[in-house]
Amino acid sequence: MTKIIDPWGSVLVEDYAKLIKDFGLEPFSHYLGLFPNPNRLMRRGAVFAGVDVKRIADAIRKNEDYYVLSGIMPSAEKIHFGTKMVIEDIRYFQEHGADTYVLVADLEAAAARGVTLEEGKKRALEFYIPAYIALGLDPKKTTFYFQSENKEVMHLAYEFAKKITANEFEAIYGSNDPGKMFSALTQVADILYPQLKKRRPGVIPVGIDQSPHIRLTRDIVARTKTKYGFVPPSSIYNKYTPSLNGKLKMSKSEPESCIELPEDSKSVCKKIKNAVTGGRDTLEEHRRLGAVIEKDMVFELLKQHLADDDKELQKIHDDYKSGKMTSGELKQIACDKMTRFLEEFSAKLEKARQNVDKLKFVSFN
Amino acid sequence: MTKIIDPWGSVLVEDYAKLIKDFGLEPFSHYLGLFPNPNRLMRRGAVFAGVDVKRIADAIRKNEDYYVLSGIMPSAEKIHFGTKMVIEDIRYFQEHGADTYVLVADLEAAAARGVTLEEGKKRALEFYIPAYIALGLDPKKTTFYFQSENKEVMHLAYEFAKKITANEFEAIYGSNDPGKMFSALTQVADILYPQLKKRRPGVIPVGIDQSPHIRLTRDIVARTKTKYGFVPPSSIYNKYTPSLNGKLKMSKSEPESCIELPEDSKSVCKKIKNAVTGGRDTLEEHRRLGAVIEKDMVFELLKQHLADDDKELQKIHDDYKSGKMTSGELKQIACDKMTRFLEEFSAKLEKARQNVDKLKFVSFN
Repeated sequence: MTKIIDPWGSVLVEDYAKLIKDFGLEPFSHYLGLFPNPNRLMRRGAVFAGVDVKRIADAIRKNEDYYVLSGIMPSAEKIHFGTKMVIEDIRYFQEHGADTYVLVADLEAAAARGVTLEEGKKRALEFYIPAYIALGLDPKKTTFYFQSENKEVMHLAYEFAKKITANEFEAIYGSNDPGKMFSALTQVADILYPQLKKRRPGVIPVGIDQSPHIRLTRDIVARTKTKYGFVPPSSIYNKYTPSLNGKLKMSKSEPESCIELPEDSKSVCKKIKNAVTGGRDTLEEHRRLGAVIEKDMVFELLKQHLADDDKELQKIHDDYKSGKMTSGELKQIACDKMTRFLEEFSAKLEKARQNVDKLKFVSFN
Repeated sequence: MTKIIDPWGSVLVEDYAKLIKDFGLEPFSHYLGLFPNPNRLMRRGAVFAGVDVKRIADAIRKNEDYYVLSGIMPSAEKIHFGTKMVIEDIRYFQEHGADTYVLVADLEAAAARGVTLEEGKKRALEFYIPAYIALGLDPKKTTFYFQSENKEVMHLAYEFAKKITANEFEAIYGSNDPGKMFSALTQVADILYPQLKKRRPGVIPVGIDQSPHIRLTRDIVARTKTKYGFVPPSSIYNKYTPSLNGKLKMSKSEPESCIELPEDSKSVCKKIKNAVTGGRDTLEEHRRLGAVIEKDMVFELLKQHLADDDKELQKIHDDYKSGKMTSGELKQIACDKMTRFLEEFSAKLEKARQNVDKLKFVSFN
């Protein structure tokens, strides 16, 4: 499978190698062998980096208590397609023994996006949490909470504020904006909250843009060592889901190249049809030279999200690269798989919605 | 009474005039006539400045809904003697129709002084709140709450953080320290919390060192006008209680010149005996020239705290200034009054302690 381990083409690969260097991260590939039955994203290098990765692999191998945590920002009733990767990571750890926490960042949504706490709560219960379950979380094994109701999180954030200086904050975030500080310190508190019950390793699967929160959290852990003795949290980083127009990152500002959930399959298939591919200008040329697979966004979509089976993906890769498969045929495969995925997602979402009152929430007095 | 309206001697007066100018405050004396039955501190210029003072005088005169709010920092089981002035101010407004709020800044005590929330709560219930009642607050007319339990306050603080920049914060506080930001924004939220129920004027009696919080609160009010429409809060400022050694401010770092509550009367009388006075070097000289009353810290103590009756104070003033009364006699008067005050305080404190379970706390669900 080495041929398709790098999903980004040569230009983008350099960016990720640079990120690893700049942020002082560990390349995930070094530790891949330590994880039992790695998921699609791990196997294919979409999980490209991490911090303190071995601590989590050890916890899994030794069957020790650890947790996985992620947050929901209930700002619009849509999930960016890339978020699906984070949920698949959570699911992997959940299936490998992690105590699972999913928090609703309703305070952040209220302050930064003007979503009232009531509206944030409603959106989380009616859409986001059911969507996370539809994408694979086991509701029976997941603990949910709302930031705005979790006094312990708010208390920790307040306390942690005394542990850093504005200059240190600026060194990590490139800003010392008060709103960003509240937001970041509340996220640090979220990340450490599961350790109030018990000190233990934890893993936070995030996009690379969240890396500063992990760094700040680990700094705060070091500075509150005497009082709290938290275990420094680990993290893993997913690559961006590339935009269908060939850019690094799917962005809502370019809706024609960005997939969101839920979205109807007709609309998605149309976007796939217009995607940037590695197909040649003429059929004759394509048959002769084969596809430039590194530039093909539809192949990326299959690799990151849609083609679970490694052998199947390898065959698609080989056929497409050799010119045996046209980009039209590739798009049809992607469209078919996407249609199936979206139908399943809708059905599961509806079912999860109906069962939302059975979820396990942290109860606060 | 004009002769004794200025309690500070010429040097210190300039400082307060400068403060009024530098902070853009209103001299309280301009509005004194608008307040019915002004208390001792107002009459004697110890309340020396304010912000939006007329708004409160109007509310009193028109019998409109308004509130007074103050905070308790439960860091040690002692009250600085100067705090007594703030409580007397609260009492004045309470007796003139104000809805009264006293909050326990247990979050601040935890973050800044390492007092756990449990310990802060215990100290507040066993000492601070009873002491406030012993000093004149009507427990039936006062609403208490703990910062750490007031989710609405924590939510507002988070939201307000997005309304200012680090530079603006630094312009007000001379610092952009994250801990100070959390603390300040939580105090802003405390100040505005009574308006969540109903928009109305409010007055915050504070020491001059708290002035930045009022300024920040009024800025935040302006910036959240569309969403909240809070009434900008008013404030009044007390002068410092001067140290018995002649310095501007009683400070715990100089315990021999600082009075705290509770303290036994023997100890206090000893401090009074060693206080800086305006008495002359010899009795003959004193009789001939009279006391330099502007430099006399014992007279200040009588004026600010101990001699309620204006006529009595005037007589003491005249006798002492003329040389008829010696500084020894003045000290004896102060010691007698202080002893009586401390005995009454102890008795009232004990009684209030026994009734602490009957207090009116904000209930949070």
